[in-house]
Amino acid sequence: MKIERFTEGTSLKRSVDSGTADQRKAVQDIIDEVRKSGDGAVAYYTEKFDGVKLKQFAVSMKEIEGAVDELSEYERSIIEEAAANIRSFHEKQLKNSWISTDETGTMLGQKLTALDAVGVYVPGGTAAYPSSVLMNVIPAKVAGVERIVMVSPPGKDGKLSKSVMAAAKIAGVTEIYQIGGAQAVAALAYGTDTIEKVDKIVGPGNIYVALAKREVFGDVAIDMIAGPSEIAVLADETAIAKEVAADLLSQAEHDARACSVLITTEASLAHEVAKEVEKQLTSLPRREIAEASIRDYGKIIVCEDMNQAIMAVNTLAPEHLEIITKDPLEVMAQVRHAGAIFLGRYSTEPVGDYFAGPNHVLPTNGTARFSSPLNVDDFQKKSSIIMYSQTAFKKNAEKIATFARLEGLEAHARAVESRGK
Amino acid sequence: MKIERFTEGTSLKRSVDSGTADQRKAVQDIIDEVRKSGDGAVAYYTEKFDGVKLKQFAVSMKEIEGAVDELSEYERSIIEEAAANIRSFHEKQLKNSWISTDETGTMLGQKLTALDAVGVYVPGGTAAYPSSVLMNVIPAKVAGVERIVMVSPPGKDGKLSKSVMAAAKIAGVTEIYQIGGAQAVAALAYGTDTIEKVDKIVGPGNIYVALAKREVFGDVAIDMIAGPSEIAVLADETAIAKEVAADLLSQAEHDARACSVLITTEASLAHEVAKEVEKQLTSLPRREIAEASIRDYGKIIVCEDMNQAIMAVNTLAPEHLEIITKDPLEVMAQVRHAGAIFLGRYSTEPVGDYFAGPNHVLPTNGTARFSSPLNVDDFQKKSSIIMYSQTAFKKNAEKIATFARLEGLEAHARAVESRGK
Repeated sequence: MKIERFTEGTSLKRSVDSGTADQRKAVQDIIDEVRKSGDGAVAYYTEKFDGVKLKQFAVSMKEIEGAVDELSEYERSIIEEAAANIRSFHEKQLKNSWISTDETGTMLGQKLTALDAVGVYVPGGTAAYPSSVLMNVIPAKVAGVERIVMVSPPGKDGKLSKSVMAAAKIAGVTEIYQIGGAQAVAALAYGTDTIEKVDKIVGPGNIYVALAKREVFGDVAIDMIAGPSEIAVLADETAIAKEVAADLLSQAEHDARACSVLITTEASLAHEVAKEVEKQLTSLPRREIAEASIRDYGKIIVCEDMNQAIMAVNTLAPEHLEIITKDPLEVMAQVRHAGAIFLGRYSTEPVGDYFAGPNHVLPTNGTARFSSPLNVDDFQKKSSIIMYSQTAFKKNAEKIATFARLEGLEAHARAVESRGK
Repeated sequence: MKIERFTEGTSLKRSVDSGTADQRKAVQDIIDEVRKSGDGAVAYYTEKFDGVKLKQFAVSMKEIEGAVDELSEYERSIIEEAAANIRSFHEKQLKNSWISTDETGTMLGQKLTALDAVGVYVPGGTAAYPSSVLMNVIPAKVAGVERIVMVSPPGKDGKLSKSVMAAAKIAGVTEIYQIGGAQAVAALAYGTDTIEKVDKIVGPGNIYVALAKREVFGDVAIDMIAGPSEIAVLADETAIAKEVAADLLSQAEHDARACSVLITTEASLAHEVAKEVEKQLTSLPRREIAEASIRDYGKIIVCEDMNQAIMAVNTLAPEHLEIITKDPLEVMAQVRHAGAIFLGRYSTEPVGDYFAGPNHVLPTNGTARFSSPLNVDDFQKKSSIIMYSQTAFKKNAEKIATFARLEGLEAHARAVESRGK
């Protein structure tokens, strides 16, 4: 791994794949076709891209329940325990509607309502992760969303991954369709005869899915467009090199474009970790991916002191941040930008990826500067409540009419004055 | 106004202006140029589109303070009181960071942090509304955003509107630049020598501004893309026709594409309101606009009973909803989708547009199904906190490693096991 000194230009930013003109055109065409021809178009593209001729898109309840039975007892209990932890953490985020009243009897507030229907995209093939199903579905469920629709492209055998279906059942998905790609996003956004439209679409996917989500954004809500995964480990002399190296590699095995960075105040740790990474790499099953990631995006940044190290973290705004230092809480207090913060030696990233409860859908590519982990708020919306009392009205009517006229909006002023001045 | 019976196909949706291919291309070119040439490109486009050759983009503090002095004492006090009300309502939305601990000593939570910097776009010309400045700036200020950068295109005289500058000062803007259009959005998103980049861009604008926001989305956060304004008034026999008509017209005067709808259980009210709208229209200064809006998008929907009327509201998901009925709170309980809900006779929409405190930046075009009024949460982001205890780790390490292997991610399992099993 490259070892370098911190400079302010350091960044985790990688170019975002915004698709070629051809890809954009293809996605636009698919969306137009699905809007025009509905199920017929979805079936056509499923045969074309997934090589499967489906009799129906919907997966039956029987099949879904069968999937749960195919897991071992131990596997099922782990997924269920993870789901319970995720549910418990997200329940703590639930907000209530509220009102405030004043002495005139005026009532102001916010009414919180769950979205009616949410679509969850789950990638197919080797990237089918049951943990991702739990992380996308459970916050919606906790928010009170009644209809949670999962879509996922069928494998060559015309089936979905068993573990994904089992996770869907455990998390509380209410409908599953084995369709994928831009055609699935379009079906969710605009509806077809068999698939009713949803209000929001979440979940990761390939470039076609990302482009389709960007295209339907506005007609429905979408979550963020996720980039490749990242970790920054902030470590001092108390960190153990082989553990830090293992954490960096767990990120690197995701994707050749994943990014693993160690930020440390300790030059000797830098060298030890670099050595450990090389050593541990050799025996990894996904060695090629991890190696490419470490080579192209891996980095060890040596800082003069903890203040500079924290500045480096805030500059990077990493998706995952591990703080393995003497006083991790003290360090955390100064961190402004990070998707998820893992504190201390026992909070290795996989603890959060799978099990502890907080969401693993996190802002990437520096967007932790302005975005949050997927959370319950993403599945509730607010309506303002305004109940003005007669007293408040009489006191303020003239001021409100004056403000309206200051903006040249006479009809606004007259709406006020129609109630008497 | 057209009077019709409710059908389930009723919708407020108007086609969204997503720009012509030429407009998209123009915006893309402007953004590319600003990224490449910075201030020079911004100056070039300001001269080209706004017809003004600026010596500098920044507006001086002296000029800003001068603007406040040019308001009458009464106007200033109204804007200040409105700002205080908006501040007070938004302060009630502030959330705190939180943690929860369990008996093993594990700590989980969310750390809330304000965004570092926000850009507020304020349209120029006749659409320069000081109320809009208050509504966009104050929530950011309350959230704790330190840098709030306002941009607005200069008038032909190379100046900004006095009332807009005064509102900016009162609301707490920290920098003002007199630039507009796609070039201003690009400058905010990517930075130039004189304008440091921001993390989020909010505020309304013309089609070029909307396209530019859509284009930079992802590199920075943006608020919603607003459509033309809407009101639905839900009224029973207790409503007074001339007041309802005045409220419908206050929406209609905004924009020829604005949409005003009355939903009522009372056929006689429908006819009276239709008559009143015609009558009140004749003397409005913005009569042409209001007339076109009422003609093309105005509608009175007569429903069989209150249940059907509420169903109509939920189908429309209006930006503004007035409930003028015997029991407005009871009706509100059944409303699922609306941007802002105004209850009772004295809560005419202008009360909320200017003064009461809740935000007037609201989801339009049916997006109240999944979006919220602009609020403090829009200017804060969350970081997950995970501090796993040794006890919790030892108890769950094997499960976490097993889950990782179920997904084929061996390096994840080994990161866990590197801490001992």
